[in-house]
Amino acid sequence: MAELATVDFNADLGESFGLWRRGADEALMAVISSANVACGFHAGDPAVMRATLETARRRGVAVGAHPGLPDLLGFGRRAMAVSPREVRDYVLYQVGALDAFVRATGLRLHHVKPHGALYTMALDDAHLSRAIVEAIGEYDPQLPLYTLAGSETWHAAEAAGIRPVAVFFADRPLRADGTVIMFDWQRYLQPSPEVVAARVRSLLTEGVVESVEGPPVQVHAETICIHADTPGAAEIGPAVRTAIASAGWQVSGELLAATRG
Amino acid sequence: MAELATVDFNADLGESFGLWRRGADEALMAVISSANVACGFHAGDPAVMRATLETARRRGVAVGAHPGLPDLLGFGRRAMAVSPREVRDYVLYQVGALDAFVRATGLRLHHVKPHGALYTMALDDAHLSRAIVEAIGEYDPQLPLYTLAGSETWHAAEAAGIRPVAVFFADRPLRADGTVIMFDWQRYLQPSPEVVAARVRSLLTEGVVESVEGPPVQVHAETICIHADTPGAAEIGPAVRTAIASAGWQVSGELLAATRG
Amino acid sequence: MAELATVDFNADLGESFGLWRRGADEALMAVISSANVACGFHAGDPAVMRATLETARRRGVAVGAHPGLPDLLGFGRRAMAVSPREVRDYVLYQVGALDAFVRATGLRLHHVKPHGALYTMALDDAHLSRAIVEAIGEYDPQLPLYTLAGSETWHAAEAAGIRPVAVFFADRPLRADGTVIMFDWQRYLQPSPEVVAARVRSLLTEGVVESVEGPPVQVHAETICIHADTPGAAEIGPAVRTAIASAGWQVSGELLAATRG
Amino acid sequence: MAELATVDFNADLGESFGLWRRGADEALMAVISSANVACGFHAGDPAVMRATLETARRRGVAVGAHPGLPDLLGFGRRAMAVSPREVRDYVLYQVGALDAFVRATGLRLHHVKPHGALYTMALDDAHLSRAIVEAIGEYDPQLPLYTLAGSETWHAAEAAGIRPVAVFFADRPLRADGTVIMFDWQRYLQPSPEVVAARVRSLLTEGVVESVEGPPVQVHAETICIHADTPGAAEIGPAVRTAIASAGWQVSGELLAATRG
Repeated sequence: MAELATVDFNADLGESFGLWRRGADEALMAVISSANVACGFHAGDPAVMRATLETARRRGVAVGAHPGLPDLLGFGRRAMAVSPREVRDYVLYQVGALDAFVRATGLRLHHVKPHGALYTMALDDAHLSRAIVEAIGEYDPQLPLYTLAGSETWHAAEAAGIRPVAVFFADRPLRADGTVIMFDWQRYLQPSPEVVAARVRSLLTEGVVESVEGPPVQVHAETICIHADTPGAAEIGPAVRTAIASAGWQVSGELLAATRG
Repeated sequence: MAELATVDFNADLGESFGLWRRGADEALMAVISSANVACGFHAGDPAVMRATLETARRRGVAVGAHPGLPDLLGFGRRAMAVSPREVRDYVLYQVGALDAFVRATGLRLHHVKPHGALYTMALDDAHLSRAIVEAIGEYDPQLPLYTLAGSETWHAAEAAGIRPVAVFFADRPLRADGTVIMFDWQRYLQPSPEVVAARVRSLLTEGVVESVEGPPVQVHAETICIHADTPGAAEIGPAVRTAIASAGWQVSGELLAATRG
Repeated sequence: MAELATVDFNADLGESFGLWRRGADEALMAVISSANVACGFHAGDPAVMRATLETARRRGVAVGAHPGLPDLLGFGRRAMAVSPREVRDYVLYQVGALDAFVRATGLRLHHVKPHGALYTMALDDAHLSRAIVEAIGEYDPQLPLYTLAGSETWHAAEAAGIRPVAVFFADRPLRADGTVIMFDWQRYLQPSPEVVAARVRSLLTEGVVESVEGPPVQVHAETICIHADTPGAAEIGPAVRTAIASAGWQVSGELLAATRG
Repeated sequence: MAELATVDFNADLGESFGLWRRGADEALMAVISSANVACGFHAGDPAVMRATLETARRRGVAVGAHPGLPDLLGFGRRAMAVSPREVRDYVLYQVGALDAFVRATGLRLHHVKPHGALYTMALDDAHLSRAIVEAIGEYDPQLPLYTLAGSETWHAAEAAGIRPVAVFFADRPLRADGTVIMFDWQRYLQPSPEVVAARVRSLLTEGVVESVEGPPVQVHAETICIHADTPGAAEIGPAVRTAIASAGWQVSGELLAATRG
């Protein structure tokens, strides 16, 4: 069925700040269907946000908010002992700020995906997950939430009537138990365009991906993610796009439309 | 006419940050009709914003965005050589962030009032004024803009079809030419509750206010503003409220409704 | 022996930022012998640092650096997953910055005491403790390090030839095992001036302090600390000073002189 | 005389922040004799500062502090209405912080050069210049101050007994009156390695440099500066180094030694 043979392809983008540039945004915008745009806490600033959204509009890429922890120096990748209330308010603030630019650009906010340590801390923490979900519920309960299938964030979204969307990190290694290795991952995976493309093909044709222990692990995913700052991202992106096409799938970012339809 | 005998009474609020408290918010919320709420650049943070809006809702106070320059250390009160594009993006970011909390609190954003150096720089600068107006136009052209009658900001708003609302700073001295003294103003005015109340009464009954040079100066104002961090603000607020009532006027923050009606 | 009857009395100070004021600095400076001065990461700014040191000079109070995590919004009180290298560099940066003002004021840096989450995280973490000690060693190995007797920080200091100074938190509850309760402590202790003074007298006359479980716990301390933002700090300070005197001890901040002598 | 045929060659460096990289530091460190190292207000962070100083030590490059305005988002290049007291305290803070790393690296602080808008604002402003000079005087009056010959900063340094060092910006255009064009300068000068090298040769052999109006202008300079973020800086650096050598001069950063000798 054509409906089933559709997958979203997303990347983290808009991670420059002031005069500092970062990320293969231009190259990735040409191949992805949805972008997670930094909102100013861990990266991004008002000018970067506007420019990123304008590129997304030109490229027809759906745009999501990518809220992070208030840690510019650590790029939002350091766990912090934030309370659920703080998380709820940080997410709401950033989603609102980004959405102002989304609407000014003539677009419509498509999803929310927490960034870095906020994303990983919430996976195992029901309280933080509920806080993220609450912020989305307050802002717009129609917004899907990108997270790991089966995580606490996933369950919190489902419990609140928010649509969770299962993410597969194509450029990060998996353990046999299905968990993703986000720190020190370079010890387990060399994400060349070929390697990442092979993982995507395996997912789309077999429903499984090789684990770091060896045996393939079953993966449930509605969207394939790569990181704009993975070395070689500008080449990995097109390779993934080609892998999706050669597996007979279509790239589409219209999750929101599907949800709302 | 009852219609004419209505005036808005506003104050800058929500200017705490993290563990630091500032401003006579509670006392002022009891007497004002509209609040200008800091948005996180010069003061305020997501938790402060939420708490401030909840108080406003409880008190029935209309809420506006109070965007400032990105200068926490200087409280947004130091002029900066920002470009019109930067100003436009800073205003849009802050209005969007605040409005997320406004809507989560069940309120509706009522107006925009630039803060501190952003406000005063724009008064004489057509480019910066247009930038502020553009951000409002992008976000919601129905939002009134609080500024000085006859300023560049005023003209930019009118030219863009945004409603300008004339502010009278009851706790700041005026020159005979109608301009307001915002820096080093303590040399010219001791804003005791009695003094400020007398100025308000003079405005509402005679249409004039005493200037620092002596002669009264004609003032056009639709909203009366006091600063939450003027010494004695908690006492000045009720005194102004009483002065408005004793002059036979009503306090009302429903400018937006009037605009949209 | 006169030597034994001397104790340092310290407080965290200089925790204002920009226009935001915080802490009973003036009242405490009149009664303490040494101050831990915020260095700009969690609180304090260059102007606040200068003003705080000038007050210390006028009052004859010894001054130490109080470096914290780079988290202004959280006042440095939220644990963060910082690496030992980051901690070493954060401490070195802040000690250097503060010492510039110390010397400009004609004073001499007396000690280092980590602030908030940096302090508590290090107590149990040998790597972070070594990082703090390394920074002190790089800057000036003669500087004593205020910490908890027997903690990892204590051992790291000793191993590196840095003098550890045992702190007793007079306004925080103790468990029977000697550990201090820093979070949610208000459930266990109401730090009225009388209560805190009684704890100090008990320490100085009996060498023990009541634990939250009931039985007294032996405490080793060379310096007594109170927090400038504990409610009632302005009254607690003089009460502690009186308690020290009435126990027959002298207040003196000359640890550094003792070390170097 | 060999003594006379010596010139310092400096560049602004250490302008990365967190995960964001910026500037041709490695390439320039191989050819310059002194570096102006960012101190964390406009760019740089504790880890970047340490790494930059370690490279300088390895390369034998003298290191100066490059303090800027507290404006990370604007890279310290936007004028701000800071008071002389604020400037004095900002400079002292940053010099102290950097010097802690300088000494930890086994180096000795060589000079101070204000960055960006702080540098240019002070050129015409006697009050701000005095504030910068005061901070240097408080910290170490032996530290030379890099600035423009004849500027207010130059005079303030001389008046206070601080040694001013005349900077020639090899990659920025000059007007016939000797002033440097720092903003929108690309309209007047295409700084190819050949063009910049020719300007340096002209300075060293003729004592003059071509102005934007045409006629050569006399230039007094003891140090030649290029910006690490001028496009092509990695190639401009070696070209300047070669130009200095081919003009029969030696590159040396030992101003401080000269001063103190």
